[in-house]
Amino acid sequence: MSQSPAALELYYAPNSCALATHIVLEEAGARYSAVRLDLGKTEQRSPAYLKLNPKGRVPALITERGVLTETPAMLVYVAQCFPDAGLAPMADAFAFAQMQAFNSYLCSTLHVNHAHRMRGYRWVDADDAHSIAAMRRKVPESVGACFELIERDLLKGPWVMGERYTICDAYLFTVAGWLEADGVDPAGIPRVVEHRQRVSERAAVQRAIAAETSDP
Amino acid sequence: MSQSPAALELYYAPNSCALATHIVLEEAGARYSAVRLDLGKTEQRSPAYLKLNPKGRVPALITERGVLTETPAMLVYVAQCFPDAGLAPMADAFAFAQMQAFNSYLCSTLHVNHAHRMRGYRWVDADDAHSIAAMRRKVPESVGACFELIERDLLKGPWVMGERYTICDAYLFTVAGWLEADGVDPAGIPRVVEHRQRVSERAAVQRAIAAETSDP
Repeated sequence: MSQSPAALELYYAPNSCALATHIVLEEAGARYSAVRLDLGKTEQRSPAYLKLNPKGRVPALITERGVLTETPAMLVYVAQCFPDAGLAPMADAFAFAQMQAFNSYLCSTLHVNHAHRMRGYRWVDADDAHSIAAMRRKVPESVGACFELIERDLLKGPWVMGERYTICDAYLFTVAGWLEADGVDPAGIPRVVEHRQRVSERAAVQRAIAAETSDP
Repeated sequence: MSQSPAALELYYAPNSCALATHIVLEEAGARYSAVRLDLGKTEQRSPAYLKLNPKGRVPALITERGVLTETPAMLVYVAQCFPDAGLAPMADAFAFAQMQAFNSYLCSTLHVNHAHRMRGYRWVDADDAHSIAAMRRKVPESVGACFELIERDLLKGPWVMGERYTICDAYLFTVAGWLEADGVDPAGIPRVVEHRQRVSERAAVQRAIAAETSDP
């Protein structure tokens, strides 16, 4: 049963995890518009945006029934609303759970480790320069360990879940875009790097990236 | 379509987020056994367990088709395998996405903030006492902010998603069990505390807790 919704609106910031949902909207052929927030101007904390999303973060997806947040939830929502795109095998409970476990690992472990590079103030006082620097120094190791687990145990190949491209591929591609800046050596994770290249060649991915990198 | 699986096996540790899945297995009437790991003896890093779950953490759910990890994935898996229990409205894409967003927030923000109290070594060097203590000091504020968002914006009442008990209730109950130890003042979040009491009165919840607190 298709539940194709009215036009969606994606709030995003460049270089954020919102790119995963942006890609999946393109893959699904959804009608949507994308609204850029400038995190440098802390637009994600403006009263108007906080009214939409009290978490004060990107991404958020505005639907006719309300606002959705959290990348793993948004990815599945788009896949479920556009079943013809075949982006999530939701009728197979085990296969779906494997996808969900992968996405959950990216958001709750990999992305969190990554966030300790630039957003350490979430976990210590913002003026504690020693601790902020200590967190930053650990990022190559903590994010690197995540990518090594993905390389060795999670990425089935050629796509994350095997023969079929799914929402997990858009999400892994997005977080793999940060690995050099996080100080992770790409030479140690060749399958992740090949996967990133493979995803980058998809037309939908190129459209999403072009939209995020064009002038507002 | 029911996908009721063969007997499941849950690897858990007391006082961990595994309790959420344990409760949901009880709510669903699933056939399962629970295997306790002693984190004090680092049994989660034993070669035998790492072979099952290379992440070296709890929980893990052993199914006839393979091993699942990550609480949000496991909760939905159990709900999907036992649809008669009505624990997740999966046919409604928006309602399901709201549940998923809630669970994702618990795992990637609340649980992560909580983990900075006892597991700061994940994000700084283990011998950096200054940074470890700095992280611990911030926990009442960072975890408290999560519970305040839940209190104000996410918990619809009487259950998380409104009139119907879902997997989100088992998960919120589990993490709300940590709030006093995290230094969060219960007086500031009365709806969360009432919810915790409401969930604690369910027979399935009491069975799961009894199983985890009895002698191995």
